[in-house]
Amino acid sequence: MPSPIASSVRRSLRRLVGGAARRATRARRDLSLETFGLSRDDSGALVLRGDQLASVVRAHGSPLFVVDSAALDERIAAFAQVPRGCAKGVECFYSYKTNPVPAVLERIHARGAGAEVISEYELWLARQLGLGGERIVSNGPARSDEAIRMAIDIGALVQVNHCEEISRIAKIARSLGKKARVGMRVATEAGWGGQFGEPIASERAFAAYRTMLLRSELDIVAIHTHLGVGIHDAGAVDRLARDVIGFAARLRRELGVTIAIADFGGSLAAPTVARHDAVALRLNRTFSADLHAANPSRTLTIEAYVEALVRGVEACCREHDIPRPRIFVEPGRALTSSTQMLLCSVTSLKASGASAIHAILDAGINIAEPVRNEWHQIFVDGPARDEVEYRLVGPICTPMDTLAWSMRLPRLAPGDLLAIMDAGAYFVPFSTSFSFPQPAIVMVEDGSARLVRRRETFEDMVRRDTFTRKP
Amino acid sequence: MPSPIASSVRRSLRRLVGGAARRATRARRDLSLETFGLSRDDSGALVLRGDQLASVVRAHGSPLFVVDSAALDERIAAFAQVPRGCAKGVECFYSYKTNPVPAVLERIHARGAGAEVISEYELWLARQLGLGGERIVSNGPARSDEAIRMAIDIGALVQVNHCEEISRIAKIARSLGKKARVGMRVATEAGWGGQFGEPIASERAFAAYRTMLLRSELDIVAIHTHLGVGIHDAGAVDRLARDVIGFAARLRRELGVTIAIADFGGSLAAPTVARHDAVALRLNRTFSADLHAANPSRTLTIEAYVEALVRGVEACCREHDIPRPRIFVEPGRALTSSTQMLLCSVTSLKASGASAIHAILDAGINIAEPVRNEWHQIFVDGPARDEVEYRLVGPICTPMDTLAWSMRLPRLAPGDLLAIMDAGAYFVPFSTSFSFPQPAIVMVEDGSARLVRRRETFEDMVRRDTFTRKP
Repeated sequence: MPSPIASSVRRSLRRLVGGAARRATRARRDLSLETFGLSRDDSGALVLRGDQLASVVRAHGSPLFVVDSAALDERIAAFAQVPRGCAKGVECFYSYKTNPVPAVLERIHARGAGAEVISEYELWLARQLGLGGERIVSNGPARSDEAIRMAIDIGALVQVNHCEEISRIAKIARSLGKKARVGMRVATEAGWGGQFGEPIASERAFAAYRTMLLRSELDIVAIHTHLGVGIHDAGAVDRLARDVIGFAARLRRELGVTIAIADFGGSLAAPTVARHDAVALRLNRTFSADLHAANPSRTLTIEAYVEALVRGVEACCREHDIPRPRIFVEPGRALTSSTQMLLCSVTSLKASGASAIHAILDAGINIAEPVRNEWHQIFVDGPARDEVEYRLVGPICTPMDTLAWSMRLPRLAPGDLLAIMDAGAYFVPFSTSFSFPQPAIVMVEDGSARLVRRRETFEDMVRRDTFTRKP
Repeated sequence: MPSPIASSVRRSLRRLVGGAARRATRARRDLSLETFGLSRDDSGALVLRGDQLASVVRAHGSPLFVVDSAALDERIAAFAQVPRGCAKGVECFYSYKTNPVPAVLERIHARGAGAEVISEYELWLARQLGLGGERIVSNGPARSDEAIRMAIDIGALVQVNHCEEISRIAKIARSLGKKARVGMRVATEAGWGGQFGEPIASERAFAAYRTMLLRSELDIVAIHTHLGVGIHDAGAVDRLARDVIGFAARLRRELGVTIAIADFGGSLAAPTVARHDAVALRLNRTFSADLHAANPSRTLTIEAYVEALVRGVEACCREHDIPRPRIFVEPGRALTSSTQMLLCSVTSLKASGASAIHAILDAGINIAEPVRNEWHQIFVDGPARDEVEYRLVGPICTPMDTLAWSMRLPRLAPGDLLAIMDAGAYFVPFSTSFSFPQPAIVMVEDGSARLVRRRETFEDMVRRDTFTRKP
């Protein structure tokens, strides 16, 4: 129960300090339309590669995910580039969990990248999309026996997550009469630990390889790591390469194991998204201070990342005099985040209840969960207008459903269309059917929008249910 | 990037202080099996009303939601009780969004409670389940025009969320040639504001009623509020009754409006769940201090809540000399939270990486999101064993997928079955299909488990997709 005195003190403080804090922190710099392949026509309508977004929404409904296939192609191609002066680059396995939309995955595969999967479902999906085992990497701490069986059976690369998995995987391989192609996930000092991988530092990673060597059902071909922490600079890539290749050299020296594949996982940051820091969020909530936009120039480009990784690995291999392994990467957000947007509409405006007007949207944490914790560029469709402060809330009837506590946007009216950028990472997999059906997904290609996932129907939402009055 | 010195200092501190902190805070008191209608047989196997939970899981797979129909019936009946000496009690409209499982909703409706819906989908579902307009309350800040049209058309009670909705609702009523039965959602000082309701204090609520009076398409019959803050004691109920009935008296006095229905929303706390406080969470994460179990004796029973509400309203009506309105309530968690559990399994154990062993479960934030922020009783199937400290993590391959940083549980082995209690509020609606299919739901009734929602299949997960190699 909030005390009325405390609330009143807080309100007064806010009045006193708020204006100054707001002025001091009006430092937001919007990202440009061009960053995302967008433009405006003479009426101010948002246009993606020739298509008016408003007309795409009229055809397919709001809210709506829109995939920009040209941007997707560019980013896939960037991962495929071979750094100047190098013989080979990296091999790319897209992290399915980031944005598991079959049409997107198909396009990624058609342009050469494979699949990184963490579950039986994802492995099944990769098979449905026509991939053979050599184009699939199986990861994760919680695979079912069936997921591991299927992976071994088709010859996928199975990255062992932790020591306790070794005998289980060996047993499954034996029951199939096949050898499992395996690597061990190792944790470096700078990266994620916890449920993921065996630490190099504690000798457990080394012990794991020694244990694997004793199992004739296992064919040790790889090493796997994943930084976890978002990669923004070449230094982090270089350190990762050193840690992993140094360890691979020790495996060769002490165990006679040659690592044919060094898999560096994902973690390359998406350039146009920034995780909010806690202080900025608090200032935004209390004093309406602007949140900070992402600064793309501070993030490694895909090309620079690939170059740093390949050069780092090759230098390290020369140093330790070991053969250069194939280099695998498993990008998620770096590949798809910026190539998909979420279009949504203002359902209603509500002036009371807070200093800012509430803009009630048809998209909230049900389909745009990441917006709570990350800065995403938002564009408003239509002619330029003066800016007004809004609180952006979603439809699901809880105060938790707040996408932004305070955001200045061109003056809104009910029905206005908003484009939330960088909706290609963790929007779709974290989507729920909380009171509202999940949106359709269209792919814009060659100047037309093709429906690739239809909107969820009410019937879909109860399709798995048994009840007396079945519709 | 964590500094190695800081980490080492933190580790030492943890060693020094951790033991003492742990001992000082080993204050957890488990809730009993009987609280949830459970027992154990001689082998230690968990039994729900005659059914071994392990055999239910063998038949229907893990993870699995299990509805205890007897407990559900008891709680519905509790809401229907008329307090001693009163002529009438409350009328109950279940909050669909809390646990939108058709078989559960059907059972609730068959025992007399109606539906509280916040979207077109939920309204459609209530109609599918055979409810007429008089048994439906339509709420929420983000209803589509179609949701409002349908509600008016069938004669549901339409609670207006904010002033700006009035003309929209009136317009839709006019287009149908019908009068809309409406109330206004008001915000009391102690309750939620923000996107919900017009505040009584600022006169906006009063102004809203004045505006509604001018619209001949609107038939003002109700007032609506929702505390939002969890109700644990009769004092909060009494204050709410006073605020709302006092305002209703003013409407009658100054506008001649008679409120026939006072709708007090939900917010009654579930007795066996407790929201973690931030300090306790931090102590748990850093020093493995036990988190505090819910204390059911500190929460109002349903009967006491109904009695406090009815007596509060009736006393206030006498005081203001206005007729006693019908009293509506819209329980969510108080009705279903404790009547449903989530059964899940240990996929694997991982000893490295933290002081506690990681127990990797087949259920994480993908289907048990509330466990991150709330204390839920967890029972382990099987014979009694010594207790060990675990970190409980889910399957979705992110450190965010941690259900408990430190929890002492009987020593686990892969395949062990866990029963997470109070899975009947916000588990199902917040469920995602993140890399893993959503579980089945069974209802235990008369000693047998009936499948009421089948497990999601891989085909279901891509049913809405269009791609070249459609399965």
